[in-house]
Amino acid sequence: MSRTGSGESVISRVVRIFEAFTSSRRALTVTELSRLSGLHIATASRLVAELVSHGLLTRTADGRVLVGMRMWELAQRASPTLALREAAMPYLEDLHAVVGHHVQLGVVDGAEVLFLERLSAPVAVVNVTPIAGRLPLHVSASGLVLVAFGPPELQERMLAGARERLTAHTLTDQEHLRRVLAGIRRDGYIVTNGHVHPDASGIAVPIRDARDAVVAALSVIVPNDGQAFAWIPVLRASARGIARGLGARPAGAAKNPLIQ
Amino acid sequence: MSRTGSGESVISRVVRIFEAFTSSRRALTVTELSRLSGLHIATASRLVAELVSHGLLTRTADGRVLVGMRMWELAQRASPTLALREAAMPYLEDLHAVVGHHVQLGVVDGAEVLFLERLSAPVAVVNVTPIAGRLPLHVSASGLVLVAFGPPELQERMLAGARERLTAHTLTDQEHLRRVLAGIRRDGYIVTNGHVHPDASGIAVPIRDARDAVVAALSVIVPNDGQAFAWIPVLRASARGIARGLGARPAGAAKNPLIQ
Repeated sequence: MSRTGSGESVISRVVRIFEAFTSSRRALTVTELSRLSGLHIATASRLVAELVSHGLLTRTADGRVLVGMRMWELAQRASPTLALREAAMPYLEDLHAVVGHHVQLGVVDGAEVLFLERLSAPVAVVNVTPIAGRLPLHVSASGLVLVAFGPPELQERMLAGARERLTAHTLTDQEHLRRVLAGIRRDGYIVTNGHVHPDASGIAVPIRDARDAVVAALSVIVPNDGQAFAWIPVLRASARGIARGLGARPAGAAKNPLIQ
Repeated sequence: MSRTGSGESVISRVVRIFEAFTSSRRALTVTELSRLSGLHIATASRLVAELVSHGLLTRTADGRVLVGMRMWELAQRASPTLALREAAMPYLEDLHAVVGHHVQLGVVDGAEVLFLERLSAPVAVVNVTPIAGRLPLHVSASGLVLVAFGPPELQERMLAGARERLTAHTLTDQEHLRRVLAGIRRDGYIVTNGHVHPDASGIAVPIRDARDAVVAALSVIVPNDGQAFAWIPVLRASARGIARGLGARPAGAAKNPLIQ
């Protein structure tokens, strides 16, 4: 790998530049980029110029720097999640129309849930995750579902890292989390009340692919009013539809929490 | 910029690797990547290893290489088009529910339209553009709208490059294209019949931002059955809604093609 004086590769410097941008920090001056990336201003300036020449970054009229359309295109057109997103989109739209609050599609990436898609209504209950946003696995309903059906090492990694609390209801106790995961495996869903925000409940179910592996979580965020269980049947039916679109053949009756 | 023996920078070699992936070629072996990118296999192999270490590429169980989730995230979370996409999404969903065929959101990138979003029905008329797909500006209804309301140099660039034909109806004659652009500026929409595919009509309208600049085209693709004009009012209303979401204050009555 080509390395500059400090021994750090060009690729890792470029990654540090892209990491400086976030959904709330979309336009940065080269000086800001230098500070946020920890790169010398001359280095940042040179890398920005080359990234702009490839369309991976772009400059505004006032000289600030944005992530470029070409970067989006290169990432998007061969995205490993495009098939999932395309299979899921019609169901997300229908769910969104029926539920009226937030609908999310999340996958595991590292120790977090990465939300690939989110449909929101302007009047919906608060939700802290934007598209391409992340939450720690133990905090979100989607994360707990993904861990429950994921490999054992993912469960151990989540338990070892489950410290952050977003509310007083966020679970961090290891034994409590193990019982919750066992419950998800038994029931096929989870309802969390106030784990991410005191006013919101999250309901999440797994989405399976053609090999019956859980590849994503489908979730809705609704007001924390004790009625969240009512959304489980429609979430499950939607998850089965998405799975069918991915080539799965979902079978078997699911436990219905509304029929005791 | 750090350059290797041939004088080509690391960044442009990395771009060549990402360019090898497309929506129909999402998993590649290192040998295929080497051939498609024109890089020596040792170079490709070394760059792939480093890109994998950053999560920008990922390896499948059988050793093939995919674009990584981290690449998608870095491109998406600060995407310059995220505000547009978020403002547009509810309207795209409603249009899709009403029209039943393909609904698209496109922007200019270079000499092409880049489609940021597409909602499709399984039974919809054929459409050749996937999400993150491109079409030459002169070929697509969206491209013609974006050129009609774009800067004069964009018009000249399109006219100079308007050679590719996808069907016998694709326009390539410069004088004819100039008349079409003038018509779009006068009417505020375009209907194309069979320009991209003989069986499909495209209807496109401009979307304006807070500075009244046209930043995107909203389009639907419907069967080429002579009824395409019926969709103009709903497209225009949707485009105004999206513009309002971007901070625009659309004003003035639009010519209604259904009322002579």
